[in-house]
Amino acid sequence: MIDMQSQRDHRRVEINKVGVKNIEYPITVLDKKNRFQHTVGKVNMYVNLPHHFKGTHMSRFVEILNEYRGTINIKAISTILDKMKEKLNAESAYLDVEFPYFIEKRAPVSGAKSLLGYTCRFFASLNNGRHKLIVGITVPVTTVCPCSREISEKGAHNQRSLVSVQVTFRKFFWIEDLIRIVENSASAAVFSLLKRGDEKFLTEKAYDNPMFVEDVVRSIALRLSAHKNITWFSVESENLESIHNHNAYACVEKEGG
Amino acid sequence: MIDMQSQRDHRRVEINKVGVKNIEYPITVLDKKNRFQHTVGKVNMYVNLPHHFKGTHMSRFVEILNEYRGTINIKAISTILDKMKEKLNAESAYLDVEFPYFIEKRAPVSGAKSLLGYTCRFFASLNNGRHKLIVGITVPVTTVCPCSREISEKGAHNQRSLVSVQVTFRKFFWIEDLIRIVENSASAAVFSLLKRGDEKFLTEKAYDNPMFVEDVVRSIALRLSAHKNITWFSVESENLESIHNHNAYACVEKEGG
Amino acid sequence: MIDMQSQRDHRRVEINKVGVKNIEYPITVLDKKNRFQHTVGKVNMYVNLPHHFKGTHMSRFVEILNEYRGTINIKAISTILDKMKEKLNAESAYLDVEFPYFIEKRAPVSGAKSLLGYTCRFFASLNNGRHKLIVGITVPVTTVCPCSREISEKGAHNQRSLVSVQVTFRKFFWIEDLIRIVENSASAAVFSLLKRGDEKFLTEKAYDNPMFVEDVVRSIALRLSAHKNITWFSVESENLESIHNHNAYACVEKEGG
Amino acid sequence: MIDMQSQRDHRRVEINKVGVKNIEYPITVLDKKNRFQHTVGKVNMYVNLPHHFKGTHMSRFVEILNEYRGTINIKAISTILDKMKEKLNAESAYLDVEFPYFIEKRAPVSGAKSLLGYTCRFFASLNNGRHKLIVGITVPVTTVCPCSREISEKGAHNQRSLVSVQVTFRKFFWIEDLIRIVENSASAAVFSLLKRGDEKFLTEKAYDNPMFVEDVVRSIALRLSAHKNITWFSVESENLESIHNHNAYACVEKEGG
Repeated sequence: MIDMQSQRDHRRVEINKVGVKNIEYPITVLDKKNRFQHTVGKVNMYVNLPHHFKGTHMSRFVEILNEYRGTINIKAISTILDKMKEKLNAESAYLDVEFPYFIEKRAPVSGAKSLLGYTCRFFASLNNGRHKLIVGITVPVTTVCPCSREISEKGAHNQRSLVSVQVTFRKFFWIEDLIRIVENSASAAVFSLLKRGDEKFLTEKAYDNPMFVEDVVRSIALRLSAHKNITWFSVESENLESIHNHNAYACVEKEGG
Repeated sequence: MIDMQSQRDHRRVEINKVGVKNIEYPITVLDKKNRFQHTVGKVNMYVNLPHHFKGTHMSRFVEILNEYRGTINIKAISTILDKMKEKLNAESAYLDVEFPYFIEKRAPVSGAKSLLGYTCRFFASLNNGRHKLIVGITVPVTTVCPCSREISEKGAHNQRSLVSVQVTFRKFFWIEDLIRIVENSASAAVFSLLKRGDEKFLTEKAYDNPMFVEDVVRSIALRLSAHKNITWFSVESENLESIHNHNAYACVEKEGG
Repeated sequence: MIDMQSQRDHRRVEINKVGVKNIEYPITVLDKKNRFQHTVGKVNMYVNLPHHFKGTHMSRFVEILNEYRGTINIKAISTILDKMKEKLNAESAYLDVEFPYFIEKRAPVSGAKSLLGYTCRFFASLNNGRHKLIVGITVPVTTVCPCSREISEKGAHNQRSLVSVQVTFRKFFWIEDLIRIVENSASAAVFSLLKRGDEKFLTEKAYDNPMFVEDVVRSIALRLSAHKNITWFSVESENLESIHNHNAYACVEKEGG
Repeated sequence: MIDMQSQRDHRRVEINKVGVKNIEYPITVLDKKNRFQHTVGKVNMYVNLPHHFKGTHMSRFVEILNEYRGTINIKAISTILDKMKEKLNAESAYLDVEFPYFIEKRAPVSGAKSLLGYTCRFFASLNNGRHKLIVGITVPVTTVCPCSREISEKGAHNQRSLVSVQVTFRKFFWIEDLIRIVENSASAAVFSLLKRGDEKFLTEKAYDNPMFVEDVVRSIALRLSAHKNITWFSVESENLESIHNHNAYACVEKEGG
């Protein structure tokens, strides 16, 4: 059969990225406590396409994913990019994967255990022989509004906030450590399982620690700036305001990303 | 050309609903204050298909939508169903439409005006010559947790909640009146635009009026039960808990829907 | 501390369902080939609340989920409902879970192996001492339009279709068998990994087997009607039409659900 | 009352963007045929926040949106940014808005009229006194796979594809013209309403004009490169593959964005 994808193209337009998008696949990632964790990823895989080729070979992406789905992690991801570059005769290769990552947490007073899922993302690329990996994590937290607390005789509006951090880094680190930085920069952390004593503790802790959306991103930015292993970061927070039907948003990005 | 859809089918399976789904279309609806309102609907249109027909004629649904898109409202929707039944030679006809409906609200202290969008839904059907219309609305509100308030020395966790009500009714009513019932059954209403005095007022009001997700649906259920024009209802509330990453949920449905 | 949820409520409104919604949790399900499979579920858990209780105890749902997350399957789910009923002093209990379920498929000509994810759902309930389980599955398939094929001199428009089936049944069955019924009722099945020979085979097979959205649901309905283990079903298909930006839709539901 | 947001902050972290996100608001945009069009936007509004201010004043964003919602268009959007910069004492201002834009189309043979909705986006910014506007549009089209057509004895798999283009430009242009460029670069355009003769015409036209996802983005890139008014662009296409449950994807971006 004719291999149409390998035919010459004469339009002289190089394609930056071509590949497969939104493949749902079971993957295995590293886990600080349990060595590894089974989860489900949404995966995008692309390569560049030089201007003289008509098309890429889409099936090869899925073959590679199939082969490496057991080792989608910070240590091994560059090997996958090398394989993509080689099998697809490309100069650049890109792998994005998003997956829920579960950590066992203990409620602050009762010690009750439960799992909380954090949305994690890897954006890996290989360009001009240089590997790059951006690791992202979305952490749900509680924020209490300082203005509402200050001006009100009682109570203060508060809400679930979704904090998303992306980083580049020098050497391996655990996602757990990034999550801890975020949870320590909010009015309080959230949990799947809380008993009454925990609820009292967290309500009071959050009330004593009010933070604007601006405060959350600044606090995290300061901690990441001071972290020797982090070479670049962006921090976003989106507050699901309890007094509005829209969200409050702030972001800080370190220059030079 | 052959009309394949009109050919006989011999499998003896009647199809309950066949048609078009998820058409995005500009529509005009009634507005209590401004007479009418332009908005954008997501529309599903179905008819039944007797077992001896092979297929329905999908293009006729869009022709009807095109003709009637200026009068998608409680008064006129039965006319559209009659037209569907006739043009598609069907016995049953169904029209679902979901659209954002905007109401101008005044902040409680400053009087500042802004628009708030509520997701509205019509589920209209014509079966055995009988028209039925379910009207639904989703209303965002604030809820303060009574337990958190009671056990904590200061503050109380609160959150945005999404309350969805569906009703059948005897005679025409304004969506605005249904929204008011919901907003009066929460710890406080939400607004797009609040100045500092409004924020203080709403924080304190909500703190003085704590409600579990159970309280919200019960309060609305009682008001709808007492309403002479409402013949059936279902009420749901989903609280975007500020201390969890999951939601608290409750629903009450009147029997006989 | 006061247990507000256990206080008496005097409004005389029984709540049909109250509980937790949209908890993301790692779960383990049964797998025909590999005995069990790790995946990630979206979970809702509810009980009824008699009119004299003010609130339910939300944390107990998560405790139960935590305990039973390794056995979310057709055989064990009634045990979880019994536990919910007992620990929450309820008369009714409900557990909904949705998860991607992965099956290894072989491409039809090359035999190339890959995984395809199917969205699976359990709707389990316990009411008046009676357990009920509805199992649902969404299966992506290819459909070729018979009308387009018939009236066109060459080609025929075709598209990805999403077929969703729900069933009740007498005794245990494998989801794999339900998926096979659906894939055999479409123009062709879909795969994650296809080589050129597979693509040729599937293109020609689908062209030779054109099906309206009505044909797909009728074909499945006939097979499920003839299946002795299936006591009730609903079948829906939604075609992501390649010539429109909206979908074609059909559904058949067996009476008596 | 204390104005907490205006207090000094000592952490020396400038915030790139702070504001409101995901406000749903009725807006009015320009329309080539009908002068203007009512639609519904999802709006984000941000400003930068110098390091010495503790917080921004969120309510002012909504006041501005309320004032200018009737003139959200390419000509007037810089005025809104100027207003944001002034009222929020900022150096930078950002306004993103996404809305469905409806165009009346005539079916190619029957001439039957219907509306098709295209998702349109404006990304407007004011930085260092310089206004920038990126206009984006997502256009649904049909693509027929050249490989499937070539290797198969009959038929060819095809699917709905979503093509997203973003451009910067010298002087005002109509979104309609950008849409035409995209629709002319696909196997065929899609319509909401087609009669049988139209379906035959489009099926045959698409079959005679097969295009890989790579071909679509290259064709559009060539036309935009040759367009004197377009100073920068990115082009993406995502094919909802009828033989897979994942999508094929390609993008080309002009350097210097």
